[in-house]
Amino acid sequence: MNADPKTLHSLLADAPNRWGRWGPNDEIGALNFLGEREVRQGLAAIRQARTFTLGVPIATDRGDPVFPGRWPARHFMVADKAGFTAGHWHPLHGGLEFADDYVTGFAQAGTHCDALGHMWFDDTLWNGYPAASTNGGMTKAGIMPIAERGIVGRGVLLDIARFRGKAALGRGETITHHDLVECARAQGVEILPRSILMVRTGWVGALLGGRETITDTYWEPGLTFSLDLVRWFDAMEIPCLVTDTLANETTYEPDTGMMLVLHAALMRNLGIVFTEMAWLDDLAERAAADRQFDGLFCGSPAKVSKGTGGSINPVFIR
Amino acid sequence: MNADPKTLHSLLADAPNRWGRWGPNDEIGALNFLGEREVRQGLAAIRQARTFTLGVPIATDRGDPVFPGRWPARHFMVADKAGFTAGHWHPLHGGLEFADDYVTGFAQAGTHCDALGHMWFDDTLWNGYPAASTNGGMTKAGIMPIAERGIVGRGVLLDIARFRGKAALGRGETITHHDLVECARAQGVEILPRSILMVRTGWVGALLGGRETITDTYWEPGLTFSLDLVRWFDAMEIPCLVTDTLANETTYEPDTGMMLVLHAALMRNLGIVFTEMAWLDDLAERAAADRQFDGLFCGSPAKVSKGTGGSINPVFIR
Amino acid sequence: MNADPKTLHSLLADAPNRWGRWGPNDEIGALNFLGEREVRQGLAAIRQARTFTLGVPIATDRGDPVFPGRWPARHFMVADKAGFTAGHWHPLHGGLEFADDYVTGFAQAGTHCDALGHMWFDDTLWNGYPAASTNGGMTKAGIMPIAERGIVGRGVLLDIARFRGKAALGRGETITHHDLVECARAQGVEILPRSILMVRTGWVGALLGGRETITDTYWEPGLTFSLDLVRWFDAMEIPCLVTDTLANETTYEPDTGMMLVLHAALMRNLGIVFTEMAWLDDLAERAAADRQFDGLFCGSPAKVSKGTGGSINPVFIR
Amino acid sequence: MNADPKTLHSLLADAPNRWGRWGPNDEIGALNFLGEREVRQGLAAIRQARTFTLGVPIATDRGDPVFPGRWPARHFMVADKAGFTAGHWHPLHGGLEFADDYVTGFAQAGTHCDALGHMWFDDTLWNGYPAASTNGGMTKAGIMPIAERGIVGRGVLLDIARFRGKAALGRGETITHHDLVECARAQGVEILPRSILMVRTGWVGALLGGRETITDTYWEPGLTFSLDLVRWFDAMEIPCLVTDTLANETTYEPDTGMMLVLHAALMRNLGIVFTEMAWLDDLAERAAADRQFDGLFCGSPAKVSKGTGGSINPVFIR
Repeated sequence: MNADPKTLHSLLADAPNRWGRWGPNDEIGALNFLGEREVRQGLAAIRQARTFTLGVPIATDRGDPVFPGRWPARHFMVADKAGFTAGHWHPLHGGLEFADDYVTGFAQAGTHCDALGHMWFDDTLWNGYPAASTNGGMTKAGIMPIAERGIVGRGVLLDIARFRGKAALGRGETITHHDLVECARAQGVEILPRSILMVRTGWVGALLGGRETITDTYWEPGLTFSLDLVRWFDAMEIPCLVTDTLANETTYEPDTGMMLVLHAALMRNLGIVFTEMAWLDDLAERAAADRQFDGLFCGSPAKVSKGTGGSINPVFIR
Repeated sequence: MNADPKTLHSLLADAPNRWGRWGPNDEIGALNFLGEREVRQGLAAIRQARTFTLGVPIATDRGDPVFPGRWPARHFMVADKAGFTAGHWHPLHGGLEFADDYVTGFAQAGTHCDALGHMWFDDTLWNGYPAASTNGGMTKAGIMPIAERGIVGRGVLLDIARFRGKAALGRGETITHHDLVECARAQGVEILPRSILMVRTGWVGALLGGRETITDTYWEPGLTFSLDLVRWFDAMEIPCLVTDTLANETTYEPDTGMMLVLHAALMRNLGIVFTEMAWLDDLAERAAADRQFDGLFCGSPAKVSKGTGGSINPVFIR
Repeated sequence: MNADPKTLHSLLADAPNRWGRWGPNDEIGALNFLGEREVRQGLAAIRQARTFTLGVPIATDRGDPVFPGRWPARHFMVADKAGFTAGHWHPLHGGLEFADDYVTGFAQAGTHCDALGHMWFDDTLWNGYPAASTNGGMTKAGIMPIAERGIVGRGVLLDIARFRGKAALGRGETITHHDLVECARAQGVEILPRSILMVRTGWVGALLGGRETITDTYWEPGLTFSLDLVRWFDAMEIPCLVTDTLANETTYEPDTGMMLVLHAALMRNLGIVFTEMAWLDDLAERAAADRQFDGLFCGSPAKVSKGTGGSINPVFIR
Repeated sequence: MNADPKTLHSLLADAPNRWGRWGPNDEIGALNFLGEREVRQGLAAIRQARTFTLGVPIATDRGDPVFPGRWPARHFMVADKAGFTAGHWHPLHGGLEFADDYVTGFAQAGTHCDALGHMWFDDTLWNGYPAASTNGGMTKAGIMPIAERGIVGRGVLLDIARFRGKAALGRGETITHHDLVECARAQGVEILPRSILMVRTGWVGALLGGRETITDTYWEPGLTFSLDLVRWFDAMEIPCLVTDTLANETTYEPDTGMMLVLHAALMRNLGIVFTEMAWLDDLAERAAADRQFDGLFCGSPAKVSKGTGGSINPVFIR
């Protein structure tokens, strides 16, 4: 990587910023763009009324793929039939027995939304909240306001992998907003303002299928920073970015080696909600067959108290 | 309680049973009733396109209310600003810092769906699967097939608490299917076949507000068993029962003291999906004001691998 | 409780303080008193060479007693025979199968030692370390140095409950250092300087036996603050205080209502290591029979990285 | 590996077995060899009265080394100074603040003892208990009886790494009982009957130092099976085997590829308690300098209810 001393502070000095746009107490950012009009826009995109669920399995035996530094969610049985037979549990009056289980994992386990305050620089979160508001639990820009609101609107699938004729993008392979626009054009679908973008790279499928693994030099494919890209997301008033990668953008900027720049430029500065690690392969296969790429995106993450994020299993109706 | 030696086996000897109806491999039961026609029915009920989220907060500081025998979900910060200052974490290249967190809790934490195999008697789960299939993780009738499918259809709010002029039903207060029908009539809404029933007792609000607490003699209000009630749910082809109580039914049958009989009669025998501990108060207040009680219920629980249930934060659009 | 505006700051203004006594980097405090001479003193007290283990069970089904604000440790099976039969696990080459399990709980679960930095006031821990050194993990005065060192010396059982003719002290019942001395005299044992004090109240036995429960107004019996008591502990160079209560002292000072004053006076100021929730009943019964109250106390808490405490199952040999 | 169809059943057909030796209810096996006479033997070996603690750190930031299939213990801060500043916590009456923390991990986290029932073949545990007694929690041959008893006796360090002139044994490098005897002779120490053997390979030091890592083809060095070795352990009445490897024996038998054969031959059949992952490097360095290799081994694992094992931080006094 480049030893360039650039920082996010200097890199984003001229980039757009929406702090204060929805008042000093806003914690949902670009979700403000999703009102009744946008819900109707999503509803209008439904044709067959067929549903898809976009969450990945959680707490799998083999260990879920997680961003380096995290560790997989885990599933534990608390009660099962064998436990009743062994006498650890006793049937309820009348005869009912039960299975029960426990899960441990990051709030951002599996498919999840980031809270707007999940990442920051210059000691300041989305909307100007101080970084110290994360101490001991999110008191500002946590996942709760997002989870209270829900994310409902017109979703547009942009199947970049298929557009590039690949099963999955390669390590570190990048995408620009021009690619998004061209992919949409090739698909015959329009990215309208305030659409929820669902960008498919095939990457989560490769991870779950064991064709890619997470190593110390992990470098995801995905969107890559440019001022123009940020301005495009700003102008398009994109409320939510959904991808099938762990972090919604290429891990390092190729030029500077800076990490996760779009978390700074789109999430912290513009308030765009990131929905990461979505399962888009089934939807994409169907869409490739019948050429319908939009529909209603409908979901809301778990209401994790003080959380930096929350799991979500979004429903897509088309 | 009554010393009556009745068991679920004898109690439900003449009750309806749908095992095999959707083939020997079915794991979603009455969700089979929710097809494209039923999704459209839900869509047709939308008027203002206003959304509500029906999940309760998870892992709150005071300890979430849980059914006796379980314990509350918990939230732990892993990284926060103070951890960066203290040197436990280092900024990413470019300057990003982050907050991260961890959650432990039952798979059925907060608002959640039960898997059809969560409870059983006579060593047999929904659709005839052996109880031993729960050992070490659900291999049959777990939450995964339900979470893959999603729950989308017309939801009907039945605000029993308001119908009875109460903030919340009392301990052990019961509801019959006749009450549901009368409540619907009073509300001016119809319970159509295949509607998702959303029964409000005010109970979760009372628990969260500290007006009710969970004790060793915990006895929730809710639906109470009768053969007629079971037949009514069967005939109406109700796919999913949503309530604002921890277990969707009164804890003990008043006559016999048997526990959670509807889990046997409706879930195990008829394959009706139980969505428990939903937050219905905000929706109910709005509905009471504008007299609109139906809409699109849209959600899907977390895809917990081998899980007995999964958290859900359903979206209701009306 | 008294509305007296007293604070620990003023209460302990004239109390002894050992900060700096063992240099600016000390993290084990009064354990410095336990050298080879003191180990020999413990060895010399051994007569029958009979051993006792002083830990309480952890992660019990009924929920371990914990100080209000904490919650019980929990035990989860990960693998068992039923899991092999169900196909979740496969025998190792050759045929071995295995049971495996997981535990979640506070670092201070069950019988445990507090790190010297576990509690503080005036923003300063033991030895003058800043309170901010606790942020994100103990970087000063955590449990690691204590766990590296171990706690080995002459232990003296002071069976206050038996001395007072009770199965267990009552709620809020207090003990002074005079009581300790008189109890020792009645038992015919001497509290030598640098002895590890093992004070039995019968309280943990009452909690484990269900005769006492933990409520919102929980008020343990135990040692109560006086300047004289602190000076006595100082002069006697007591390295470690072991009791069979959750917090080693009466919860509230009767006069002022201040909480856990000895954690401030003995632990934070004098560096005395607190070993809490020890199981002393079996040892006490034997000692009452043969009138031998001293022996070798030998144990070391778990080396919990950055921990505020660590579980310990001490061995007592007499 | 060899495709030899041998099984533990056939391999150990003629190997010694002690089931029933201490009655049908025994759960501590060879610890029965440690009585007052053996404790005195350990005490007699003490010279300087210097103590060592033999536990490894738990829940480290980098992730503790664990046997493949397990995952590292983790440490979470619950309360720290920053959490008080942020208002998540409030000082106790009088002014005390506190740090508190939580740990999740396998019962066999860090340095630990295996319960005698932790591993089995032919559906039968130590002493003939059925494998089904592991279901839902250890009801037979769990860690509790061992933790109640404690492990106290004469420990003998056998520094095989130093004996072979290595910092650490290599992957898959094996040790026989002849090596143990020769190492003892070279060290000038005697392996008396009923000694606790502490076999040092340097392996845990290599793992903690990052010189060895855990991969899918993980193959530890250590003791390797032979009938003679088993008979030697039997004849010597070894109560407890302590090593600085994750599993106390070489992972695979070189000839047959069978895994963890000594867990079957020594633990399941002879009731020898395995203490794994001990930290022996500091002790070994000291012993190499002053040529004293024996002393008192004193410790007891955590009393994990129904546990398959328990963490231990043993104290060694010499």
